[in-house]
Amino acid sequence: MAVGVPAIWFTFVSHVLAVVSAVLVLIWCIHFRGGLAFASTNKSLIFNIHPVLMLIGFIILGGEAIISYKAFPFPKEVKKLIHLILHAIALVLGAVGIYAAFKYHNESGIANLYSLHSWLELGTICLYAIQWIFGFVVFFFPGAHPAVRGEALPWHVRFGLIIYVLALATAELGFLEKLTFLENSGLAKYGPEAFLVNFNALVVVLFGAFVVIAAVAPAHAEETYAYTTISDS
Amino acid sequence: MAVGVPAIWFTFVSHVLAVVSAVLVLIWCIHFRGGLAFASTNKSLIFNIHPVLMLIGFIILGGEAIISYKAFPFPKEVKKLIHLILHAIALVLGAVGIYAAFKYHNESGIANLYSLHSWLELGTICLYAIQWIFGFVVFFFPGAHPAVRGEALPWHVRFGLIIYVLALATAELGFLEKLTFLENSGLAKYGPEAFLVNFNALVVVLFGAFVVIAAVAPAHAEETYAYTTISDS
Repeated sequence: MAVGVPAIWFTFVSHVLAVVSAVLVLIWCIHFRGGLAFASTNKSLIFNIHPVLMLIGFIILGGEAIISYKAFPFPKEVKKLIHLILHAIALVLGAVGIYAAFKYHNESGIANLYSLHSWLELGTICLYAIQWIFGFVVFFFPGAHPAVRGEALPWHVRFGLIIYVLALATAELGFLEKLTFLENSGLAKYGPEAFLVNFNALVVVLFGAFVVIAAVAPAHAEETYAYTTISDS
Repeated sequence: MAVGVPAIWFTFVSHVLAVVSAVLVLIWCIHFRGGLAFASTNKSLIFNIHPVLMLIGFIILGGEAIISYKAFPFPKEVKKLIHLILHAIALVLGAVGIYAAFKYHNESGIANLYSLHSWLELGTICLYAIQWIFGFVVFFFPGAHPAVRGEALPWHVRFGLIIYVLALATAELGFLEKLTFLENSGLAKYGPEAFLVNFNALVVVLFGAFVVIAAVAPAHAEETYAYTTISDS
């Protein structure tokens, strides 16, 4: 089946949504929540690093890493290098973001790892790391036999997208959890801050949907979906 | 690319996870939360209908509707009828489940539609209904021209799966939101009920993943993924 819309258009929409979402999380954490700090007597400022790094570092950079294959006009080897470097940065920033949440909990006497958000977060980042190592070894260095690569690639794409969707779901859980805590402490349920956070959560859903569609869409309009997802190109 | 595992095995795993998840939500709402009632002075019993119907009715039955195409050995027309009837029942039970949440809120003086869970829930069930109507008109009655069906089917599959993943994410938000409310009211964060609910949320993630994999996997081992997802069979 020929598909009329090449992947590049979906990547453009993804970039725009990424910028909107990044700006909104910064407005939330800096304007509404008082700013960011790795060390402070105001422990909330330590927490604020968590949503900023998880969203801009892990979700957005991870999404850009996924669609970089479709967004750049470079040779395959260059795109592969960009793909793995962006994913590595996303992984490191995600780990630092999780560290910030633990640091905030520990310095504020809040329990760790009891919520679904924390369970899925740790599970997802572990799967993400395993997926990165698997991809590095099979497709980059030392690199598997071409026949093995050919068999492994569609699974790399499918598992990668499943892990990314898990990361998106975890981000949604994070928005809801933090906002519920704030509303229980008196934040207005229909106020501007609550609206901004929920709106950003919807922008992230849309960003994720466009990343996934861009990843499975053909690079050129005349290609079929099948070829792009199952050939190593 | 030939794939070694036909879809039927993924559907078997999905069924098992569905049963586990249905039993766990019933244990939660009946044993831990006191039971179900459409009218009661104990308003919590009205709320309890919500997770039971959304999970067993909407998520599980909706998932079974999706994989019914791969699970049954019947002719295409029979499978199509089962597919659309199961989705219709899921849609109705989902709508009744949402009604129960509103009824509980209204009778308990709790605000409606301020949380991300409620926003995504309403958005998802509307998309689900649109998808059902679109599928009914194009593929069942009156039915579009075969060429139009051929073009529409892969989009029906892709949008259907995106909407189903949104439904799964909304269910996860629901588990987290309700548990957070209960924990704020004194429920033990590491207690048996919290563990049961979080564990069930993970079972639902796995169920959803197996439903999606079953939906995109080939019906027979020797088929390619491509043929099954893009041909009207």
